[in-house]
Amino acid sequence: MGFSFFASRAAARFLEDIRRPSSFLKNLDSSRYEVKVISPRNYFAFTPLLPSVTCGTVEARSVVEPIRRMFEKKGKDVAYYEAECFKIDPTKKAVHCRSAVGTNLDGNGDFMVDYDYLVVALGATVNTFNTPGVMEHCHFLKEVEDAQKIRKSVIDCFERASIPNISEEEKRKILHFVIIGGGPTGVEFAAELHDFLVEDLVKLYPAIEQFVKITIIQSGEHILNTFDQRIAVFAESKFQRDGIELSTGFRVIKVSDDSITVKCKSSGVETLVPYGMAVWSAGIGTRPVITDFMSQVGQGKRRALATNEWLRVPECDSVYAIGDCSSISQRKIMEDISTIFKVADKDNSGTLTLKEINDVLEDICIRYPQVELYMKSMHMVDIADLIKGGVGDSNKESMVVNIEEFKKALSHVDSQVKTVPATAQVAAQQGYYLADCFNKKDHCVEHPEGPLRLTGSGEGHHNFRPFRYKHLGQFAPLGGEQAAAELPGDWVSMGHSTQWLWYSVYASR
Amino acid sequence: MGFSFFASRAAARFLEDIRRPSSFLKNLDSSRYEVKVISPRNYFAFTPLLPSVTCGTVEARSVVEPIRRMFEKKGKDVAYYEAECFKIDPTKKAVHCRSAVGTNLDGNGDFMVDYDYLVVALGATVNTFNTPGVMEHCHFLKEVEDAQKIRKSVIDCFERASIPNISEEEKRKILHFVIIGGGPTGVEFAAELHDFLVEDLVKLYPAIEQFVKITIIQSGEHILNTFDQRIAVFAESKFQRDGIELSTGFRVIKVSDDSITVKCKSSGVETLVPYGMAVWSAGIGTRPVITDFMSQVGQGKRRALATNEWLRVPECDSVYAIGDCSSISQRKIMEDISTIFKVADKDNSGTLTLKEINDVLEDICIRYPQVELYMKSMHMVDIADLIKGGVGDSNKESMVVNIEEFKKALSHVDSQVKTVPATAQVAAQQGYYLADCFNKKDHCVEHPEGPLRLTGSGEGHHNFRPFRYKHLGQFAPLGGEQAAAELPGDWVSMGHSTQWLWYSVYASR
Repeated sequence: MGFSFFASRAAARFLEDIRRPSSFLKNLDSSRYEVKVISPRNYFAFTPLLPSVTCGTVEARSVVEPIRRMFEKKGKDVAYYEAECFKIDPTKKAVHCRSAVGTNLDGNGDFMVDYDYLVVALGATVNTFNTPGVMEHCHFLKEVEDAQKIRKSVIDCFERASIPNISEEEKRKILHFVIIGGGPTGVEFAAELHDFLVEDLVKLYPAIEQFVKITIIQSGEHILNTFDQRIAVFAESKFQRDGIELSTGFRVIKVSDDSITVKCKSSGVETLVPYGMAVWSAGIGTRPVITDFMSQVGQGKRRALATNEWLRVPECDSVYAIGDCSSISQRKIMEDISTIFKVADKDNSGTLTLKEINDVLEDICIRYPQVELYMKSMHMVDIADLIKGGVGDSNKESMVVNIEEFKKALSHVDSQVKTVPATAQVAAQQGYYLADCFNKKDHCVEHPEGPLRLTGSGEGHHNFRPFRYKHLGQFAPLGGEQAAAELPGDWVSMGHSTQWLWYSVYASR
Repeated sequence: MGFSFFASRAAARFLEDIRRPSSFLKNLDSSRYEVKVISPRNYFAFTPLLPSVTCGTVEARSVVEPIRRMFEKKGKDVAYYEAECFKIDPTKKAVHCRSAVGTNLDGNGDFMVDYDYLVVALGATVNTFNTPGVMEHCHFLKEVEDAQKIRKSVIDCFERASIPNISEEEKRKILHFVIIGGGPTGVEFAAELHDFLVEDLVKLYPAIEQFVKITIIQSGEHILNTFDQRIAVFAESKFQRDGIELSTGFRVIKVSDDSITVKCKSSGVETLVPYGMAVWSAGIGTRPVITDFMSQVGQGKRRALATNEWLRVPECDSVYAIGDCSSISQRKIMEDISTIFKVADKDNSGTLTLKEINDVLEDICIRYPQVELYMKSMHMVDIADLIKGGVGDSNKESMVVNIEEFKKALSHVDSQVKTVPATAQVAAQQGYYLADCFNKKDHCVEHPEGPLRLTGSGEGHHNFRPFRYKHLGQFAPLGGEQAAAELPGDWVSMGHSTQWLWYSVYASR
């Protein structure tokens, strides 16, 4: 079974560590640094569990971790400021902050914090794609408060539908719950909501059970379209059995206080959907402070703050970024092909033997993960298979390539550059990785553990290995103790026990 | 020990029943009536525990009881409307309601509910005595949301005092927590807050511990002035040891966003008290819907809705009131003295023998509890002692009194009429009592169990015994597991174990 993976407690503990939103601070050895934390919320929230908070399956307090409490437990001497960073000034190496605690401050609410190293982990914001009415009328699932508001709002709908003098049509409208966006968050929320209605609310409001409906509006042809197709199909048929309506292929173009205007993507026909409560889970956007910082460092045209593979913002010294606010720009191998050739060509012969290539192969693969991905995708057994492509069908052992042949052999490799997804799993692994680098910085400057430098003049080793995302799978609870999970190594699991196993990893302390 | 009283589980269960805010609905046999419940909040809150919610000692969800959940558990077929009653119309026997669930209702939010019997249990509202700024700047302890807001606000103060660039003076101001009103609620909150600060927050904010202060402002000379004096003194010395400042003899005359103006009652001097957070627990007031109803039924000049001893509003048919919105008008014995004499004088002799008086004595004592209280206060052994006062020092056995002598003997009894306090304990007992009356109504019409009718023409028996408040004591937690309790029968207990015992009764399910 694919799940033996989860069976060991140590594995579970490790998974937990690299999944936590607070993984950077948790893992950082703060005796080596003077740490200052700036956040407008004095807790870390484990956002993947927010859909469960909406329906009371999980208590709000179990998905949050108070920041100060965490430091206290760890015995760490860390300063925390409940404030929002509204500007990063990389030339002065300082951040401008505004107290989040409101009134009564006599103008003292703004302050500056200097840094030697800055770790930007501001997350993303909701992206409404400027759809009119979404901000005003939809709920979101980004913060703990959002989940609590949704819970209250669902119950309010039932109460509203229960007061006298409400027509059946009105009841149907009030009890129509719409989820816009069929990604993991939207799907999990729909499933939680369905269970909450069927197992709980319907008993308390038996008179109006018949008027309740849940709809998922998804612009793509399938829900869960980042998952394996088998999972999407399984989830869709489960939802159909449950009576959850799937409106796939529809784009939301407007939301008013009591209806949603959708447009069929194939026919272009617009329809009005009356609703009682709507949740928008259709996209993430960039925070203004990040947009401003990006334009300062010359990244004005990008959608997220770019870092190199060591999670550092390449344009400025000592600024790192992790999580949904950033994305890693994987270096293309073709940009560095001349340096790579030069480094590999130890005898300066102007050609590379297979041995010379094999000597630097590990470093190349660490630095450019696309090489292995490409070879795997082409079913190549070893590097000789790849190099052959440049020189034609020559004999492996005696193979010698010049720079042009080397370039030709690697010319398609960069097609396999993968973007790391914006998930909590990635953010947590990045935090864990970066703290680890900071902890061993002194040691690694003396004893570099990274690959050969293959860019620029190409001398010596990188201090650290670059960040590498370990995909631990995806999981979608589908309600009624059914769930679907996608695990590394092409495992797909659907059905009853999946959820329990996943949660035991996710939610255990 | 005074606490053997609490030792039995059955007693605890009974106490619990008669303490619950929902005691009327819990106890009512709803199979006999078509019950409709109108409340803007879909839960009952056990307000005496709110101070503990502010500091996390007790979870908000353990002090609330969702209304629908309660009906579901009891299997009761009860209609519930989440709405606010904004007008009582006793001539049409209907209440006007407005949905509390807000938007999206297309004007359908108002509706009317007819009644045969109406039980008014609207509670009281905050009374600021029109002190400027109180509504805008103070917290209250009436609703569950209030308690949660206070908790957030306390933590916000600590965060505010932790941001850079805050002067020591400002820190002192921000971390000054003021409680206005030294009654049980204010005192318990002060104690909870003190424990929360000392046991919890100070560990998380060690740098600002020295700036924290708690002050209770009380206009009277002592806090807890409805309690036995020994308790007040004990509480005051406990608070002094804890460093909680008691400003007794001060009246609050104004509250601004960062200071409270107090006036010394003896000297008349006004002082400005800078503060970070203030809680107002200094009085209760009448809701507008009650004020309106009172003026409709000719009670315009009273401060609370008056009921008779059977909890019925005497001016209108079939309207009952319980809890803080109402107060019982105990009938004076002197108003009915002629009827009482006539009823007792069975042989129409124009005089009463001691036997004749003794024959109706139980009924008199049930109807006019002040008789027993008066006799007790005067250390009288039996009724003859009381009657002697009217006729001089005659012989008990052969005593005969005429109407004038009878009046003279009872002329001071009404001085012992006691007002029932506005506490949760009273409200819960009233609810329990009233439900009981409704449950046995049919039986009691046939077989009255109340005392002789001693008013008006004075014929037959009342259907029910009048409501009689059983004082189960008062309790004030003082922090650090110290508490003071006043129990029936003049027991006073102070110290360590008191709180635990009390809570085990209060909070047990």
